[in-house]
Amino acid sequence: MKFIGIQKRHGTSLGVLVGNEALDLSACGDILPAALELPPSLRGLLEIGDTALAAARKIADEAAKPSASERLRAKGALTALDKITLAAPVPEPGMILSCGMNYHEHLKEMNTPVPDKPTAFYKSITAIIGPGVPIVLPKKAPDMVDWEGEFSVVIGKRCYSVSEAEAMKYVAGYTIVNDVSARDWVAPIFAAKGIMGPIHAWEHNLLGKQFPTFCPMGPVMVTADELPNPDDVSLTTTLNGKVMQSAHTSDFVFNVAKLIAYYSQFYLLRPGDVITTGSPSGVGYGHNPKVFMRPGDTIAVEVKGVGVLSNPVVAG
Amino acid sequence: MKFIGIQKRHGTSLGVLVGNEALDLSACGDILPAALELPPSLRGLLEIGDTALAAARKIADEAAKPSASERLRAKGALTALDKITLAAPVPEPGMILSCGMNYHEHLKEMNTPVPDKPTAFYKSITAIIGPGVPIVLPKKAPDMVDWEGEFSVVIGKRCYSVSEAEAMKYVAGYTIVNDVSARDWVAPIFAAKGIMGPIHAWEHNLLGKQFPTFCPMGPVMVTADELPNPDDVSLTTTLNGKVMQSAHTSDFVFNVAKLIAYYSQFYLLRPGDVITTGSPSGVGYGHNPKVFMRPGDTIAVEVKGVGVLSNPVVAG
Repeated sequence: MKFIGIQKRHGTSLGVLVGNEALDLSACGDILPAALELPPSLRGLLEIGDTALAAARKIADEAAKPSASERLRAKGALTALDKITLAAPVPEPGMILSCGMNYHEHLKEMNTPVPDKPTAFYKSITAIIGPGVPIVLPKKAPDMVDWEGEFSVVIGKRCYSVSEAEAMKYVAGYTIVNDVSARDWVAPIFAAKGIMGPIHAWEHNLLGKQFPTFCPMGPVMVTADELPNPDDVSLTTTLNGKVMQSAHTSDFVFNVAKLIAYYSQFYLLRPGDVITTGSPSGVGYGHNPKVFMRPGDTIAVEVKGVGVLSNPVVAG
Repeated sequence: MKFIGIQKRHGTSLGVLVGNEALDLSACGDILPAALELPPSLRGLLEIGDTALAAARKIADEAAKPSASERLRAKGALTALDKITLAAPVPEPGMILSCGMNYHEHLKEMNTPVPDKPTAFYKSITAIIGPGVPIVLPKKAPDMVDWEGEFSVVIGKRCYSVSEAEAMKYVAGYTIVNDVSARDWVAPIFAAKGIMGPIHAWEHNLLGKQFPTFCPMGPVMVTADELPNPDDVSLTTTLNGKVMQSAHTSDFVFNVAKLIAYYSQFYLLRPGDVITTGSPSGVGYGHNPKVFMRPGDTIAVEVKGVGVLSNPVVAG
């Protein structure tokens, strides 16, 4: 099943793909009454759990039957994707936890030793935007805005201190996050001195990942059953159609199960929380000469089985 | 006005202090019908804004009139504080942003130079607990759990890229956060080598702040009008009644207006977001010999004008 966020004038609603069409679960209740019992967000649906997921699946199956499809189309509850505005599939998670330095190839490229534990930083939830929504270059830091296409995990059930063997039980599904980053503060990391120097520089660097619109997410959350092996997935990032990142999650330093097991030793994870698994090589900062996003560009991250997360870039 | 969270069997509701008593805004609607129009959380109330704040104030004023008080007491909607279980005043903020190294006295104690920019890390919202709720020493890291009593700001209005002069307009009020921290990973910071060593060690150290129950918050959020100068506030932390931290916010490196102005250059801040302003000197790790919390201890942080945030400590 592929869940989508649907942008409305005020707020978002939850949808699901039926074939190539979008079913708005908040608008189909008179034809498919079971939908009236569903919450208006994927996070809410995951909080209810398996029964709500099963109900959504049944509704999607019903909607696919020609008799229902026609009525739903007539009502505008089942539409072509280009007739709606997508929002992020999880527009308001409790947390986005980001791993970095998680592809061997990327570490080699940066001449950095393989870390013995996953890194972990936060990404601001107020930076989330949906597919197609413009990434805004911040007025104060417009010149070094970079992409990081990241395969991402959506947590389905509360978990704390779970083992690697159990970890995958807590996954609801997968999406894509573009961990957009203003790189203005990267160079100072490498020039930093002493113990506190690199730490201050690193924290400042992380602030460059928090600007509004710097967290495109989507286009869907595909449920885990449709992507049974998240460690066997290919990811491609293109800038204006030109391939910039091309990777495979088999190159992970810490795979999805390891990340969940590790983070859950510290964090209580909850339904809807998002874990981004780190960027592969090929970010703009790593190119020679460096390449950054400019107004008019389009950046697109594709993960097979999830889809394409494409966003235009505009000046702030 | 002093807002409180009230813990119910399932979830929390919003209350306000009327004299020394707690008025449950979710339980007084039949006597004070205006309360029916208020949302069930402080975050929701702040999202609506000034009209909702004014309505809450009017309801609290009405509740203080003897005729209403008696009826509210009879109904159980106005009760002594020891008859309810407090929750955090903002049990589910969008974000807790934490400043560190923000008291001159603490920096002197640690022999650390004054930073030229505020530090900024996240604290997990799933770690939030209310006053009186036990801090649980994690099974995997029970031996070095420390306190950090922190004066904290609750954002009242959306803001992005605001100036220091404007910043205070976006403050809803103030609360206290105990930034509980397992220090097991502090020593490796100082032993770290190279550029990436301190960064990895720092990130790992931050994980020690994310365990469930490691974010006591409360006892109230006092509205900004009752605490007109947040840079003139005294804070005291006691362990089993013995003073461990005693500080005054006039010692801040970056005061509240500077912090909001700085963070808002990067983050879109929203109603209910919490900014913790950093710990003063006197954490357990800084004592000689070091002092950490043990099962049976009580840790209490007092800020004049806000109250006392007291939590027992239990084994995990």
